[in-house]
Amino acid sequence: MKESNCTQPSFSIDLRVYYEDTDSGGVVYYANYLKFFERCRTEWVRSLGCSQSALAETHDLVFVVRRASADYYKPARLDDVLRVDLQIIELGRSRIRLAQRVVRVDGVNSELPSGGESVLVGGDVEIVCVRASTFKPVAIPAFFHATFQETV
Amino acid sequence: MKESNCTQPSFSIDLRVYYEDTDSGGVVYYANYLKFFERCRTEWVRSLGCSQSALAETHDLVFVVRRASADYYKPARLDDVLRVDLQIIELGRSRIRLAQRVVRVDGVNSELPSGGESVLVGGDVEIVCVRASTFKPVAIPAFFHATFQETV
Amino acid sequence: MKESNCTQPSFSIDLRVYYEDTDSGGVVYYANYLKFFERCRTEWVRSLGCSQSALAETHDLVFVVRRASADYYKPARLDDVLRVDLQIIELGRSRIRLAQRVVRVDGVNSELPSGGESVLVGGDVEIVCVRASTFKPVAIPAFFHATFQETV
Amino acid sequence: MKESNCTQPSFSIDLRVYYEDTDSGGVVYYANYLKFFERCRTEWVRSLGCSQSALAETHDLVFVVRRASADYYKPARLDDVLRVDLQIIELGRSRIRLAQRVVRVDGVNSELPSGGESVLVGGDVEIVCVRASTFKPVAIPAFFHATFQETV
Repeated sequence: MKESNCTQPSFSIDLRVYYEDTDSGGVVYYANYLKFFERCRTEWVRSLGCSQSALAETHDLVFVVRRASADYYKPARLDDVLRVDLQIIELGRSRIRLAQRVVRVDGVNSELPSGGESVLVGGDVEIVCVRASTFKPVAIPAFFHATFQETV
Repeated sequence: MKESNCTQPSFSIDLRVYYEDTDSGGVVYYANYLKFFERCRTEWVRSLGCSQSALAETHDLVFVVRRASADYYKPARLDDVLRVDLQIIELGRSRIRLAQRVVRVDGVNSELPSGGESVLVGGDVEIVCVRASTFKPVAIPAFFHATFQETV
Repeated sequence: MKESNCTQPSFSIDLRVYYEDTDSGGVVYYANYLKFFERCRTEWVRSLGCSQSALAETHDLVFVVRRASADYYKPARLDDVLRVDLQIIELGRSRIRLAQRVVRVDGVNSELPSGGESVLVGGDVEIVCVRASTFKPVAIPAFFHATFQETV
Repeated sequence: MKESNCTQPSFSIDLRVYYEDTDSGGVVYYANYLKFFERCRTEWVRSLGCSQSALAETHDLVFVVRRASADYYKPARLDDVLRVDLQIIELGRSRIRLAQRVVRVDGVNSELPSGGESVLVGGDVEIVCVRASTFKPVAIPAFFHATFQETV
C-alpha cells in the first residue's frame, strides 16, 4: 500500500444495492451512503489486523465520526454494484481525515457506459480516536498510526 | 384501560411514513413495520411510567423479542399516517405475547375510502423480560405485571 | 414566520430516539441524523401546504439532496427527546441551502442540565428541485419560492 | 442443487455485522434480520439468472412478502460473520414458502466454540409473485417455477 497516492485510494470494498438501501424515489436513500462509507472504514481497520469490537474491548478505544459530508452527483439504484473507497488526506495525533467515494462499477442503469465507471457520491469524513468509556479523544495506537502514515 | 378487550387495543401511537421507511417498490420496506411495532411497545412501556433506558440502568432489565411475525395485507406509502397499536394476548411470568397492527388512518392512497381505515399489517410478537447483563429471563417487575394484567 | 432571522430557526419538529436509531456504541448511529434532518424538511414542506408525494405525483417535482454535511458535537442516546430544526441560508432559483440542527430537549443523559438544551449535531444541507422523471433541476414552484423568501 | 433436502439449504450468503446493524443493547436490532433474509433471497434469484430490477422492468413482476416470522434464539454482535440461508418448503402457482436461517460462522462472541456454528435466528417467509404495477398475484414465470421445483 506504500505506493498509494492522492489519485489512488488506499482501500476499497464492493457492495450490492438491495431494496433496504433504496427509497420510493427509486434510488439509494441519501443517508445510506454514510452506511456504505462506514462499512469501508470498518473493513479497512480490519484489513490492518484489528476489528472494531477488539479495539473497544481490549483497548477501550473507538473511532467516532466528528464530521461527515457527502456530495451527491448521481443516484445509485437497486441491484447496482458499488465500489466504496477511502484515502487518508490528513493524519493527526487522534484525528484522521478521509476522502471517500462511491463508484458504480456495474449496474442496470443505462447511463453507465459498458465497462465504464461513474463516481456517484464523494465524501469527506473526519474520525477521531476516543476512549470508549468517556468519548474523550486519545492518541491513535502507535501501530495504527505508523501504518496510516505509510498510506497518506 | 381496564375495560379494554380483545377487539380494542390497549395502546396506540400515530406515525408518518417518511422516505427513509420506503423502498424502490414505492411502498414501506417490509422490515420497517417491525420498527413501527417497537416504537409502539416503547411508548406503551413509557406510558406506564418507565423508559427502556431507566429499566436497563436502574433494574438491569431489558425486554427482548423472542418471536415476531407479520402478515402483510396492503402496502403503506410515503406520507401515509399510520396508527400502530398493541393488545396483550398472553401474559406469563417473564413473557408477554402481543397482537400488534398497523392501520392507515390517513393517506394519499386512493384505495382508502374517505374517513375509512385500513389494516395494512398484523403482527404477533412475543417479548421476554431478561437480565440486561446476561440475557437470561427474569420475572417481569411486580408493578408492571399488575398493570399488564389489567389490560389483558 | 416573517420575523424569523438567522438565530431563530424557521421550523422544527420533536422526535424520540428509539432502539432502531442507536448502535452498539450506545449512541445514535451517525447516518441516522440525516434521517432526522429529512423528517424535519418533509414536515416543513407539508406545513407549507404540500406533501412530497403530492409534489411528485401532481407536479412531477422532487427535492433531492445535492450536498449534506454534519458536525457531530455530542451523542444522542436511547429515549432522548430531540428537536430538529432548519433555517434557510441561501435561496436560489432551484436550490435551497439549509442550516439544520439536532438539539436535545430532554434526556436521561446526565450531562444535560435540568431545563437546559444542548446542540448535538449541526448540519448544512443543499437541496435542489428536480423533475421527478428526469432528475434535471427545475425552478422551485412560484408559491413555494415566495414563501421561502419570507423565511430567509 | 437437485440433491438438496430439508436438512440442506438450497442457497446461502455470508455477511458481516456492521455498526449500522446493531442497537444500543449491543446486539443486532431485531428488524435487521429481515434485511439479511432479503439479501439472501435477492442473491438467490440473481443466482438463477435474473435480477429483481430486470424482473420488474422487463416482466413487470415483483416478489413481495406476504408473511414473515422470525424466532430469535441468540443475538448476533458487531463484527460477527453470519451465514444466511434459505430452503423452499412449499411451492405454489404464485406463492413460495421459505425456511430461512441466520447462522453465526465466525464471531468475537465467546459462546461460539472454535470451529462451531450457532443458529441465531430461524425464519419462515412467504413470498408472492405479483404484477409490479397492480400488486395482484400472478403465476411465477415458467423458467423460475421449474428451477424452484428442483430445489424443493
